[in-house]
Amino acid sequence: MTYCVALRVADGIVFGADTRTNAGVDYITAYRKLHVFAEFDDRIFVLLTAGNLGISQEVCNWIHRDLLATDGRENLRTAQHLFEAADYVGRVSRSIQERHSAAFANSGIDGGSSIILGGQIRGGSHNIFLIYPQGNYIRASDDTPYLQIGENKYGKPMLDRLLTTRLGLDDAARLALVSIDATIRSNLTVGLPIDLAIYQRDSLRIGRQIRLDQDTAYLRELRSSWQIGLARVFDELPRFDWEAPGTGGKVPSGS
Amino acid sequence: MTYCVALRVADGIVFGADTRTNAGVDYITAYRKLHVFAEFDDRIFVLLTAGNLGISQEVCNWIHRDLLATDGRENLRTAQHLFEAADYVGRVSRSIQERHSAAFANSGIDGGSSIILGGQIRGGSHNIFLIYPQGNYIRASDDTPYLQIGENKYGKPMLDRLLTTRLGLDDAARLALVSIDATIRSNLTVGLPIDLAIYQRDSLRIGRQIRLDQDTAYLRELRSSWQIGLARVFDELPRFDWEAPGTGGKVPSGS
Repeated sequence: MTYCVALRVADGIVFGADTRTNAGVDYITAYRKLHVFAEFDDRIFVLLTAGNLGISQEVCNWIHRDLLATDGRENLRTAQHLFEAADYVGRVSRSIQERHSAAFANSGIDGGSSIILGGQIRGGSHNIFLIYPQGNYIRASDDTPYLQIGENKYGKPMLDRLLTTRLGLDDAARLALVSIDATIRSNLTVGLPIDLAIYQRDSLRIGRQIRLDQDTAYLRELRSSWQIGLARVFDELPRFDWEAPGTGGKVPSGS
Repeated sequence: MTYCVALRVADGIVFGADTRTNAGVDYITAYRKLHVFAEFDDRIFVLLTAGNLGISQEVCNWIHRDLLATDGRENLRTAQHLFEAADYVGRVSRSIQERHSAAFANSGIDGGSSIILGGQIRGGSHNIFLIYPQGNYIRASDDTPYLQIGENKYGKPMLDRLLTTRLGLDDAARLALVSIDATIRSNLTVGLPIDLAIYQRDSLRIGRQIRLDQDTAYLRELRSSWQIGLARVFDELPRFDWEAPGTGGKVPSGS
């Protein structure tokens, strides 16, 4: 499985993804699921992919091939609006899934692929799109300024509680880490390292792109600080009316 | 859908359940999913049910009927060990599902029913069991001292972070509320009111049983305190090395 999340705030977009890929439970590897397409002057795209790894890689390959083609074909460069890029990627994804659908059905393999596409084209605003395996897509809204693919449930409560479009870009990056880390803790099919890309609106380039592993000091500090803080908040929750004041609160604060 | 959770700590057991039941999205009602069987001197049982409501009710009906029967048949009173009660409930559940399986299959209805059974029989220890739709069951362990049925993913991270068997009984009750409330916030098919039952080990009776709704002052205080606390902990997380100290932290603390 996989967990990818994109957060769109007023100042820009944060993209986050785990890297665990598994074929069954006894073949577990790490693959990048966050793909930056930055070879343009007037636009920038980031793709997050979930689902069948072969399909995801083929989607990226086709997108690159279309960009290199000289026959005037549609590609990420020809889109005038961000939604046209989402529509194009959706059609690429659907074509590739259809190529393999009969063989996959015969083998009982799920060949679905969900994609988040985010970025900006000069003259338009920054945004993120969730592209379904069927090729259609939705845009994030100001009410729900995030999109998720893969194992999305564990990391959703903190997004629902803490994300607004007014959140600063670095705070949004921290929140993406909190959301991904909650998923990693609760689900073995989502794992370190975490890829993170931070896009500041109108910059048309990825300002920061980092990978965080268990040896990354910042990730260790973030995890420890979050765990200790949560335990403290839990200890300070109001008591039931039958409890004597000052009782309770034996939550260990270690991680 | 449904979310039920049971937490087994050294001091006893906490049972929690939402009450939302839906047939499609346009017929939403509230039904009790937490059932106490307390008409004994030497034992106590609590059942949490998830899945098809008709099956769940029939399971409870059969258990009650078996208790009233005078032909010496197996029932909750005849079990010598807690696992025998789980085995019995599993067989009741499976029999009922089998009765309806052909009709359900014809209608495309999922008639599965998952059950958590917890309690204590004098002379044995208190424990909780998860009974699968197939009738088999597992027991909670000291490493994983909780069991969930229904929409279990949203509420799992806080259990993984904060629950140990050393947690006090009232703290465990608070943690159950935190876990259920996270699920209610993120998933429309899980809803208020929340039923909570607290069992102190060796008491062989339910010490406290409460229902919390949106008008319950304690639930409002707990939600507000948790939301404000989480926002504060998030604001205090360590900064990335490229951030100036003291920057960031614009999370709204209102719920």
